[in-house]
Amino acid sequence: MLKHVEHIGLAVADLAAANALYTRLLGAEPYKMEEVESEGVMTSFFQTGQSKIELLAATHPQSPIAQFIEKRGEGIHHIAFEVEDIRQEMTRLKTEGFHLLNEEPKRGADNKLICFIHPKSAHGVLVELCQTIPNGDEA
Amino acid sequence: MLKHVEHIGLAVADLAAANALYTRLLGAEPYKMEEVESEGVMTSFFQTGQSKIELLAATHPQSPIAQFIEKRGEGIHHIAFEVEDIRQEMTRLKTEGFHLLNEEPKRGADNKLICFIHPKSAHGVLVELCQTIPNGDEA
Repeated sequence: MLKHVEHIGLAVADLAAANALYTRLLGAEPYKMEEVESEGVMTSFFQTGQSKIELLAATHPQSPIAQFIEKRGEGIHHIAFEVEDIRQEMTRLKTEGFHLLNEEPKRGADNKLICFIHPKSAHGVLVELCQTIPNGDEA
Repeated sequence: MLKHVEHIGLAVADLAAANALYTRLLGAEPYKMEEVESEGVMTSFFQTGQSKIELLAATHPQSPIAQFIEKRGEGIHHIAFEVEDIRQEMTRLKTEGFHLLNEEPKRGADNKLICFIHPKSAHGVLVELCQTIPNGDEA
């Protein structure tokens, strides 16, 4: 089951400028910045209620975020939902006919195991599942 | 202050198909459907934790949702944040340099007063402020 909106990912071109702007908008500074090398992104997290706003900036031109911005401009990139057991949820969603972008959970930012659902499976929305890694252990 | 993500708005072409798909994804049916004539949309709401997923389908070809889909395809349309006092927040954000799309709060779906921030003010993200109308009164 999808428990709640864990975060909303926003693709930005200039992370420092976007950090300053979202600090003004949300009234609080990012609580964390973290590079995810495997995805070619530098991330920045703001807490707002139960959810986070995750700013995503490309670290190289082949990064999916660079490609997204080149094609569509800056904007909302994905919605992530917290799940209890990501493997169980991946199995459930495959059975329901959703097309997953990775067969095995992979390591994301902010101590999460993640999996993406193809936007073609979800009316153009890139949906991420994420499960908090217990005690920061690798799964 | 922006309190939490009240909802995420998704532009969809076929509301019945999207309702069925998001019911499978989220594991629960929409709790409400409502037409907002002034915006040319039929909406459908799913609860997920503290936030809602709002599906938006155009009711006529001039609807902003029809135009969005024509230009970009189906996908994530906006992020809405709950605020305590929308007029106070609109004043604060104008002072901070944000460009508001309406000078006065207007009536939105699901018993809300709403105001949009121009995407050019927020790195390509259409941000909505919304305040619950006390006792369903018009403000």
